[in-house]
Amino acid sequence: MLGGHDMNYPNGKKKIAPHQNTTQLNHNYSNRGMTLEADINATNAYYLDTDKAIIHKKPTPVQIVKVNYPKRSAAVITEGYFKQASTTDYNGIYRNKYIDFEAKETKNKTSFPLANIHDHQIEHMHSVVNHGGICFLMIRFTVYNETYYIQAEKIFSYWENKLDGGRKSIPYHLIKQDGYLIPLQYQARVDYLKVIDKLYF
Amino acid sequence: MLGGHDMNYPNGKKKIAPHQNTTQLNHNYSNRGMTLEADINATNAYYLDTDKAIIHKKPTPVQIVKVNYPKRSAAVITEGYFKQASTTDYNGIYRNKYIDFEAKETKNKTSFPLANIHDHQIEHMHSVVNHGGICFLMIRFTVYNETYYIQAEKIFSYWENKLDGGRKSIPYHLIKQDGYLIPLQYQARVDYLKVIDKLYF
Repeated sequence: MLGGHDMNYPNGKKKIAPHQNTTQLNHNYSNRGMTLEADINATNAYYLDTDKAIIHKKPTPVQIVKVNYPKRSAAVITEGYFKQASTTDYNGIYRNKYIDFEAKETKNKTSFPLANIHDHQIEHMHSVVNHGGICFLMIRFTVYNETYYIQAEKIFSYWENKLDGGRKSIPYHLIKQDGYLIPLQYQARVDYLKVIDKLYF
Repeated sequence: MLGGHDMNYPNGKKKIAPHQNTTQLNHNYSNRGMTLEADINATNAYYLDTDKAIIHKKPTPVQIVKVNYPKRSAAVITEGYFKQASTTDYNGIYRNKYIDFEAKETKNKTSFPLANIHDHQIEHMHSVVNHGGICFLMIRFTVYNETYYIQAEKIFSYWENKLDGGRKSIPYHLIKQDGYLIPLQYQARVDYLKVIDKLYF
């Protein structure tokens, strides 16, 4: 899940009137404000429309506890809880390859805290790599409005290091060095397939 | 989503005490009663444990409308609705290949009603095939307790036919002919990777 605990879901979507939404979109594109999740969804929609790749965000996992079935209208979930995801948020297919990634935003200026990723997700990413999939992490530093593509393999070494009592975060300068900056664009806003093309094809 | 509108989610899980659950499991394995979804989840868990494949069910898509954030306890979704899935329910990776499928149960004895599948899902399955993924439908005839693997490509021709004013269902005898019976087993209860091995490797 994006943003971890400081998720503002679902309020963001509900309280914006249609024309405000448009305004916000233009404003955001110009520089900042659009969430990474929104950017990725727009990018995936563009990939889908242009038949470039089929990559979707998995629905937010919800544990459904109570459901009402009113007569003549849709079932209403009246009690549910957010569950922790055991995999990554995005997956799909591109150029015959299985694609799998997680996206995270941080307000931090100097490093990416590894607490944003869970054990299960790292385990999942390991398996994906072992089975021949393309796996990565997309990290956005909101303060700089910079988005980086970091191969899962690089994350593993920071994770190992953390488990061995080392740093609990990845320094920004190492992300700049080991990762690939994804430029913000108009159509495919975070065109991560370009990085994949360079790295794997 | 499995079972379409006659989904008994989430009651099934909640009302069974642990030892009843075990009893039910044994009973079911012997012949019938376990849902296809439960069988697939168990199979995928087995594949994951044995590092054979990484295939997961996507969470049920829920449109979250209201969330309460009580102090000192977890956020509670107090209003939510089931959304129609735009893709299939299961995907992942096996032997370097992208795997994607949908699973459906029917109580029908003579045919599988195509109304169980949505336009969006067919579109998605088409894209998956075009991008080099392995895509199929798993259909269980609950009356016979038989589960079939049917390649997406076969489904497309029935779908086209339906759009051209033809049959709105796939006759059982043609599913027997065009599909592959997945035997019910103990460990990997519906061992669909065996069919994939035969067809693609």
